[in-house]
Amino acid sequence: MAKLRVGPFSISLDGFGAGPDQSREQPLGRGGEALHEWFVPTRTFRRVHGESGGTTGTDDEMSARGFENIGAWIMGRNMFGPVRGDWGDESWRGWWGDTPPFHVPVFVLTHHPRAPLQMKGGTVFHFVTGGIAAALNHARAAAAGRDVGVGGGVSTIRQYLLARLIDEMHLAIPPVLLGRGESLFAGIDLPALGYRVMKQVAGEAATHVLIARA
Amino acid sequence: MAKLRVGPFSISLDGFGAGPDQSREQPLGRGGEALHEWFVPTRTFRRVHGESGGTTGTDDEMSARGFENIGAWIMGRNMFGPVRGDWGDESWRGWWGDTPPFHVPVFVLTHHPRAPLQMKGGTVFHFVTGGIAAALNHARAAAAGRDVGVGGGVSTIRQYLLARLIDEMHLAIPPVLLGRGESLFAGIDLPALGYRVMKQVAGEAATHVLIARA
Repeated sequence: MAKLRVGPFSISLDGFGAGPDQSREQPLGRGGEALHEWFVPTRTFRRVHGESGGTTGTDDEMSARGFENIGAWIMGRNMFGPVRGDWGDESWRGWWGDTPPFHVPVFVLTHHPRAPLQMKGGTVFHFVTGGIAAALNHARAAAAGRDVGVGGGVSTIRQYLLARLIDEMHLAIPPVLLGRGESLFAGIDLPALGYRVMKQVAGEAATHVLIARA
Repeated sequence: MAKLRVGPFSISLDGFGAGPDQSREQPLGRGGEALHEWFVPTRTFRRVHGESGGTTGTDDEMSARGFENIGAWIMGRNMFGPVRGDWGDESWRGWWGDTPPFHVPVFVLTHHPRAPLQMKGGTVFHFVTGGIAAALNHARAAAAGRDVGVGGGVSTIRQYLLARLIDEMHLAIPPVLLGRGESLFAGIDLPALGYRVMKQVAGEAATHVLIARA
């Protein structure tokens, strides 16, 4: 059966998936860019952004797995647009440029209905107002038997974890402390929800942890 | 100048240094033993416990660093005895057997005065009722120019971190989720306190992270 997967999702050593004070100018919060520095140079990052070259090795191989066999993505509204809600006017077309790195349908959780938005390279943003279960139903249908990926952010992943709907989660942990921000783990008892660590792999610039429901 | 150092101190991926429900029967809390499984087979663990043999490699080398040049240890009262306070009768001689693995003076933070306790192998437990600064003064004097180690547990380390007294902290992170327990990071903004990650090293069974004040 098709799976619901997370990752690679980057968190700091102290468990934050984004820094504090997220804004239009600073979508990942203060210090949050450092979470992704391990990923940006990889061949996989460059490939999904339509560029050639990039580093190979464990970080790249682990990243590539995250995009394999994904037929649709789900993301929270902050991964599509600024926190302040100023994309309600429909001129906002996402953080991701004209050719987003998804290349499949993407279901954005929001409280604001909006017509689908066709981008270059195969990405279509669909806006889902019915909550996480509705988004999952839409995404599974769109994925047509392939897996569905939850891209983030933290609060979206936490909602799916708490509902025990995530089958596999790949966390990438670079050597970064953020101190404050959005905590992935706070108040979530993953073992009690049935999750176990299946594997821990050292990459060149991040530690990769594979978590799954046992 | 002599340093105040932590580690190797083991935490789970979700940031807990001990599991929930600590008791006399379960001093590390539920699931807490799993935090130390990477360490027990090493040559260093066996050596400080007076045994020969053991695994070599990165986990062992990183562990050995933690015991080098340490002239005295500081620990919280729960690392000496059961939480319930039932060592007030002075028959309790610590969790650590007749020959504890410290081999130098150990200063135990407590509210209950008690005469020093001489163990085999060089360990002397001293009971300090004056708080973390007093314990550090005593330990620095006893260490006579060598470094002082803070052994734990979580709440003791947190007190010293919040006072910006820790110079270096070595965390060992095995592939373990605990879900609940004593969180090392919760509510502590390490970057704001001046701490940075200096190095991240993959061991055979744990990831080692070196944190220091910049």
